[in-house]
Amino acid sequence: MSHGYIIPIGGAEEKIRNRAILRRFVDLCGGSKAKIAIIPTASRLEETGPRYVAMFEEMGVAKADSLSIETRQDCTRSDYLSILQQADGLFITGGNQLRLSTTIGGTTVSDILRNRNLHEGLHVAGTSAGASIMSEHMIAYGSEGTTPRCDMVALAPGFGLTHDFIVDQHFHERNRLGRLLTALAFNPRPLGLGLDEDTAAFISGDGTLEVVGTGGLTIVDPSQMDFSSMDSASRHDPLSITNIVMHVLTHGHSFDIQTRKANPQPTAASLKVELAPADDE
Amino acid sequence: MSHGYIIPIGGAEEKIRNRAILRRFVDLCGGSKAKIAIIPTASRLEETGPRYVAMFEEMGVAKADSLSIETRQDCTRSDYLSILQQADGLFITGGNQLRLSTTIGGTTVSDILRNRNLHEGLHVAGTSAGASIMSEHMIAYGSEGTTPRCDMVALAPGFGLTHDFIVDQHFHERNRLGRLLTALAFNPRPLGLGLDEDTAAFISGDGTLEVVGTGGLTIVDPSQMDFSSMDSASRHDPLSITNIVMHVLTHGHSFDIQTRKANPQPTAASLKVELAPADDE
Repeated sequence: MSHGYIIPIGGAEEKIRNRAILRRFVDLCGGSKAKIAIIPTASRLEETGPRYVAMFEEMGVAKADSLSIETRQDCTRSDYLSILQQADGLFITGGNQLRLSTTIGGTTVSDILRNRNLHEGLHVAGTSAGASIMSEHMIAYGSEGTTPRCDMVALAPGFGLTHDFIVDQHFHERNRLGRLLTALAFNPRPLGLGLDEDTAAFISGDGTLEVVGTGGLTIVDPSQMDFSSMDSASRHDPLSITNIVMHVLTHGHSFDIQTRKANPQPTAASLKVELAPADDE
Repeated sequence: MSHGYIIPIGGAEEKIRNRAILRRFVDLCGGSKAKIAIIPTASRLEETGPRYVAMFEEMGVAKADSLSIETRQDCTRSDYLSILQQADGLFITGGNQLRLSTTIGGTTVSDILRNRNLHEGLHVAGTSAGASIMSEHMIAYGSEGTTPRCDMVALAPGFGLTHDFIVDQHFHERNRLGRLLTALAFNPRPLGLGLDEDTAAFISGDGTLEVVGTGGLTIVDPSQMDFSSMDSASRHDPLSITNIVMHVLTHGHSFDIQTRKANPQPTAASLKVELAPADDE
């Protein structure tokens, strides 16, 4: 079978009134036939898993199960592995992405989710920490600000679903351009995706990305970069980088990750979605 | 064709008296028929490239060319791309690995070297910075010491020849166990390889590793790790990690990267090599 979607979400996706992102995810997974697995490991709140289960059930899926993975030993539980093997979609919640990488990295759970996404069409969505963990290179933590500085960001290995991009989330709300630019200045091979809250990138197996949600998606393309001072700057100094290409896209716009071309025209699917509830609701 | 060897070297490989590592590399590349390309970009010394050219010529190769890549623009030079396309072996010198990632990352040069190593049998050796750059996850810089601490190491994307391990070099000489453990604690998926000076790991396409040289290779296998405090520790505090498996191997010993089994028996090839010159030489 084919490559499933990868769906990073910038955090704080709308859960009550107008669930445009979650609705699109559920539809992609088969709607009323969808079996959804949830990994709440990033969160330290016990209610996170059950809350998503209740929400997906309310949205009419066939089955929603939360895998309460707290330790690396939990990653060997056969009931959890069996749910993962049968799921149409996997949802990874927010919290701390280092909880995900340290608890699940290198286990059978991470092997299954990666193999099933790459080869068996499992769609993988994640919000906030759940968005960061997806790529090979994950922003583990960093500091706020617009100007890149050498020591502004810590990278770590994520779940490795893709090499093509590095994700940052709560992008506008937490002023994270500087740390995304720093991450890209180390090696301008991947693209940078900066996702605002309640904003998702639906990325198909062929590398077509579509924006869904009420915020912006900032795409930083460093492939034409002709200079970076990363190798010579002092750790606390601002970094110099030249010729970075940037796009800001909103709901319904698309982008081709292979050709790196933006298409700011609404897709047919996006026109059917009403994002904000009417004022009198 | 098949996957070429990946050969990280811990720096300061013997260049004059007993070139066991460089000899083995040249033999692997075809001996007197070998065409060797050299990337001296990590170094800021002008003589680095010509010095390796002279040495490989003295060792009797058919052809040795240094690609003087100083800028990202240099990575489009057709004469350099043509040399890379025809080489049997590529040697990446020491210096600063961030010079390599910022100058070559995401360019045609990095695409060619990766594709030819994976699919056309190009053997890629690198010493010091040239060893660090090979993997998907590269130690960009860090601090000395034995005990891991959260903020002890900076990771960055490398050339991506493999996901299987993270390399550190000058391992014994610069006291780098702590930073390698920290790199692995982020996500215990890859293996850690800590290479002493004048010590190389010859890694074949099927994941068999053989040690060549006068120092030790420390292999850190975190796959059985059952606890890490990386997600909860303060940035400057020591990290707690449990159940790390370690091997120290020396000349002629081998290791299977897939099964993660060490074999401390000398290989047939290693018995033919005399490492240290006799005292009366």
